[in-house]
Amino acid sequence: MISPFAEEVKSFFMSLQNDICTAVERTDGKAKFQEDAWSREGGGGGRTRVLQDGEIIDKGGVNWSGVHGELPDNIQKALGLESKFFFATGVSIVMHTVNPNVPIIHMNVRYFETRKSKDSSEIEDAWFGGGIDLTPHYVIDEDTKWFHEQLKTACDQHNLDYYPTHKKWADDYFFIKHRKETRGVGGIFFDRLKANSVISLEDLFAYVKTVGETFAPTYTKLMSKNSELTYGESELEWQKIRRGRYVEFNLVYDKGTKFGLDTDGRIESILMSLPRMAGWPYDYKPEPNSREAYTLEKLKKGIDWV
Amino acid sequence: MISPFAEEVKSFFMSLQNDICTAVERTDGKAKFQEDAWSREGGGGGRTRVLQDGEIIDKGGVNWSGVHGELPDNIQKALGLESKFFFATGVSIVMHTVNPNVPIIHMNVRYFETRKSKDSSEIEDAWFGGGIDLTPHYVIDEDTKWFHEQLKTACDQHNLDYYPTHKKWADDYFFIKHRKETRGVGGIFFDRLKANSVISLEDLFAYVKTVGETFAPTYTKLMSKNSELTYGESELEWQKIRRGRYVEFNLVYDKGTKFGLDTDGRIESILMSLPRMAGWPYDYKPEPNSREAYTLEKLKKGIDWV
Repeated sequence: MISPFAEEVKSFFMSLQNDICTAVERTDGKAKFQEDAWSREGGGGGRTRVLQDGEIIDKGGVNWSGVHGELPDNIQKALGLESKFFFATGVSIVMHTVNPNVPIIHMNVRYFETRKSKDSSEIEDAWFGGGIDLTPHYVIDEDTKWFHEQLKTACDQHNLDYYPTHKKWADDYFFIKHRKETRGVGGIFFDRLKANSVISLEDLFAYVKTVGETFAPTYTKLMSKNSELTYGESELEWQKIRRGRYVEFNLVYDKGTKFGLDTDGRIESILMSLPRMAGWPYDYKPEPNSREAYTLEKLKKGIDWV
Repeated sequence: MISPFAEEVKSFFMSLQNDICTAVERTDGKAKFQEDAWSREGGGGGRTRVLQDGEIIDKGGVNWSGVHGELPDNIQKALGLESKFFFATGVSIVMHTVNPNVPIIHMNVRYFETRKSKDSSEIEDAWFGGGIDLTPHYVIDEDTKWFHEQLKTACDQHNLDYYPTHKKWADDYFFIKHRKETRGVGGIFFDRLKANSVISLEDLFAYVKTVGETFAPTYTKLMSKNSELTYGESELEWQKIRRGRYVEFNLVYDKGTKFGLDTDGRIESILMSLPRMAGWPYDYKPEPNSREAYTLEKLKKGIDWV
């Protein structure tokens, strides 16, 4: 049993996965997503969709999952939950690109609920989480400003506090502590948004819907526009390094990745976020006044892009 | 102040670094190690030596460090130590290779002590740790057997229990839990070996010396022999994938790496272990009966190679 509300969220997320795959395939124009459907022993499953060797996308995943069952005691405790009967559904996206001028992007929208008992469909606790953030190999101010404007517009439709607070949340979350640099130019991030006296679960769902629907038009525009830009060997070398940083963040800090690895999730679905190729040349230092050096300068918290 | 015994260990480790660098350079025949000396704010420092673009070695690091000062409370507690006045010294090696037929190797030898007070040179607690383990991109039984024989010979000079117990320790430590595969074909691993009623700190040092001195003749032989073997694009693709697994182990599980990242160590020294290029193609499955499939079969705990 899952709540009727959860059924609604789940079917929205499944359509969102379809719509995003269609939009990305159309823009890429060459490769198609391949689907791997998987099921989870404890209950539920997912549809992992990965596109490789595209014209614009080198490796991109758009994963949907909907899993239910009983939480292990330690996770129930860590989440501070009364009940262990849970349902979780979400869409996770990471796109790595062929052309270093096209940014890496990540999106996630997720819903989590517990119910009072195994056979009850009554919600005990429920929240939404998610966000979209951009990781350009080369920071282009104009694109970054435009990207943040799209997010601000999406947020502002729901609550004027969302953009500033969720933008800051992204800056803090997507931070590679040991490098003292942000993963990219941020975006928005939020977790455990719950209903309260002024905001209903339906209101939060409406926000999450808008976030999900903002992904395709925003990213496909950057795909088309920036894949026209030329590049050479040195840009590809830098792309490998930036992807290496992406790997560092995901394996060392990302909570979703850690959770997946710790709970015996489907490895190739979890690690679809990792690029087909990344690299760690020793102690690479960009030339002063180069595009690479400029990019490093912009990988900081607290930049007001809008 | 550090103990007179620590001075002795430290100077042995510094010479060991020199000797290994000389042997690897001579065998490689093309590239030279570049040294970055660094110092640590709290006390001490290190010499990071990295060789890139060799004939045989693609990226290899042979790092020495010797650091002292006061342990942060949480680490003192985690280690169960009476005193916070510590000294730690060690040599760490990782070699990534050009030719996929030449294995990746890792060695570490380390010594740690605490002293009764800041200005005392009297040891309060002290231990050795270390090991050598091999990560072939392609498992070659004959080489693996020979490698383990070299380690067994080294161990047996000191204690007949060392090889079996430290071999098992390596199998358990170098395990990529989420992949259910070992990082490579193992070797030996040990940690916190302390003096007791029958074994002195000097005995342990003698063992660690032998382990350190076993590295160069063993690895340079594999370098020379296997760099003669031919390879093509598909072997390079597989090499990238195996290096990806190496990155997964080091960023997700390796205690030394985690400790370094958590304690603000010199990042490029800690992450010298990561390859110049690695990759994660989605859901790669080797052909049945291929050398790649054979390798995967051998990445298991508990294989008796000797």
